[in-house]
Amino acid sequence: MPPRPATNRQIRLKSRPAGMPSAGNFEIADAPMPAAGDGAVLRRTIYLSLDPYMRGRMSDAESYAPPVAVGDIMCGHTVSQVVESRNPDFRVGDFVTGYDGWQQFAVSNGKDLRVLDPKSAPISTAIGVLGMPGMTAFVGLMDIGQPKPGETVVVSAASGAVGAIVGQLAKIKGCRAVGVAGSPDKCRYVVDELGFDACVNYKTDDLAPALRAACPGGVDIYFENVGGRLFAAVLRVINRGARIPLCGQISEYNATADPGGPNLRPLLIKRAMIKGFIVSDHPDRAPAFLKECAPLVKAGRLKYREDIVEGLDKAPAALIGLFEGRNFGKMLVRVSADPTRT
Amino acid sequence: MPPRPATNRQIRLKSRPAGMPSAGNFEIADAPMPAAGDGAVLRRTIYLSLDPYMRGRMSDAESYAPPVAVGDIMCGHTVSQVVESRNPDFRVGDFVTGYDGWQQFAVSNGKDLRVLDPKSAPISTAIGVLGMPGMTAFVGLMDIGQPKPGETVVVSAASGAVGAIVGQLAKIKGCRAVGVAGSPDKCRYVVDELGFDACVNYKTDDLAPALRAACPGGVDIYFENVGGRLFAAVLRVINRGARIPLCGQISEYNATADPGGPNLRPLLIKRAMIKGFIVSDHPDRAPAFLKECAPLVKAGRLKYREDIVEGLDKAPAALIGLFEGRNFGKMLVRVSADPTRT
Repeated sequence: MPPRPATNRQIRLKSRPAGMPSAGNFEIADAPMPAAGDGAVLRRTIYLSLDPYMRGRMSDAESYAPPVAVGDIMCGHTVSQVVESRNPDFRVGDFVTGYDGWQQFAVSNGKDLRVLDPKSAPISTAIGVLGMPGMTAFVGLMDIGQPKPGETVVVSAASGAVGAIVGQLAKIKGCRAVGVAGSPDKCRYVVDELGFDACVNYKTDDLAPALRAACPGGVDIYFENVGGRLFAAVLRVINRGARIPLCGQISEYNATADPGGPNLRPLLIKRAMIKGFIVSDHPDRAPAFLKECAPLVKAGRLKYREDIVEGLDKAPAALIGLFEGRNFGKMLVRVSADPTRT
Repeated sequence: MPPRPATNRQIRLKSRPAGMPSAGNFEIADAPMPAAGDGAVLRRTIYLSLDPYMRGRMSDAESYAPPVAVGDIMCGHTVSQVVESRNPDFRVGDFVTGYDGWQQFAVSNGKDLRVLDPKSAPISTAIGVLGMPGMTAFVGLMDIGQPKPGETVVVSAASGAVGAIVGQLAKIKGCRAVGVAGSPDKCRYVVDELGFDACVNYKTDDLAPALRAACPGGVDIYFENVGGRLFAAVLRVINRGARIPLCGQISEYNATADPGGPNLRPLLIKRAMIKGFIVSDHPDRAPAFLKECAPLVKAGRLKYREDIVEGLDKAPAALIGLFEGRNFGKMLVRVSADPTRT
């Protein structure tokens, strides 16, 4: 195990962004190394997950969770290794997943941690395909989308952490899976590697005809991640009784004026349904999710791609890149070396 | 019974409107009086229902039902009296409800008719509170809204045929009922006569503060009839888990350009749901609707108000008035005298 430094590097929210976040909204600070008091667990962060919801936490606009306070450590899911334990539930060397945020080390009583078995799946999957993003795909698709064999499922941000899982699960459920992504490489990956039936490039394709061509039988489920003109275009090709799990609208998170939305007449004509959901409301679904998806990951039937930047200091730029669609796959920061990958 | 004229006056669709319909889109014609062939029932129209959905039938834009062809009789629910019957299921003098459209007489094999008992409820209610509009309120509120005691239900077009029933049913279910209507008279009626807890005047009130004041506990169900800026304003005060039955968006039916819609971020933050519905999909709910609502009407607990114009020729202007909010209550045309009201 590498030596423990004297300080704990953290990235804190320095100011609230107006529009797209910039490096200046973050502050890099070296805090004193925390100590593990009685009953506590000290761990070193290995992976930090970067996710679109973080834009909401940087803002003080109303959302489903309180914002990160200015001056506080940025929040985020993490995979870590225990370096000191005064808690019988954790041993030094254990890999754990938690919500430690943008810092190199964290300490707590361990109630917020889950021990990982690095033999059952790569530890980084605990914050990816088998973590919050994968479960978001599972809950939105299965519980709201309720896919039936033969139906067509469209998912935006299809090469991303959530979209990739939505489309592969849709295929496993017997559906036609159509992705929407932002580059030829991403579209090729979605079709050739992930096995989607088609993928529309929203940056270059004429959306309405491209969607019609990719979905000759119309759209039964649209897993909505992006908002904007794609959402409006998909609404025009939904089928009667369509279901739209509303997971996110990343194209609008940095808007400085009300971006409005699509006219909802198609919902009426097609007796369709849109339902917003937040995965953290559904911890009861975690066992079903892991029971179904962990074996699929192990068998290689649920593929995932990670886009890893090296070093905590790169996190701000990587998060900004996420809003610009520069990532290709699940965005992770390797905060320290992963001892399971050598 | 009044003498049968030599001709049957009809109002036909002359041309498709662009934007608001005008008198010139309709054609008044005197067709030959139809005869009742073997097995047929000839009836005289007493009441014709005018409803917002008719705008959709005048247009050839995609909708949930085929348009009225140019040159065809305008469609519509009717209450009629049998004047000639060669069908054992109907006797001369019977009151029936059907879908005979904008004409003085109609003939059919009777399969499209239901006999009314004028002793159990005024015959006009068969196309109002106990007909399609009432059942629309029932299905949307009960099946999609799923009201629970103590919740707040907001309904737009609250003094209209559907909205009035939504709010009264909401009160019966133990909810707080808040209406939105377009004049002080309508708002007074909604509160004083129908028993809503509050009513917002969308023409004069500042919507956001008025809604907040009328709904101190937020909005759990919004029964959406109108679209436009009211819809956007209500979205900003919905509660977590809100349900929005999407019944209509009358303010947008005459739009000549895409009116867009509200930003849907509140749906995500509040895990809320919008679901479009068309009452004609739910004939299975008619028995439950009548079982619950017919006794309420009889007991005077489900009140209704009719706005009746006299004579078929007035139907075009009355329909246009509906889109301008000029009606006050369920819009009906008295095509011929109602023998039950003397």
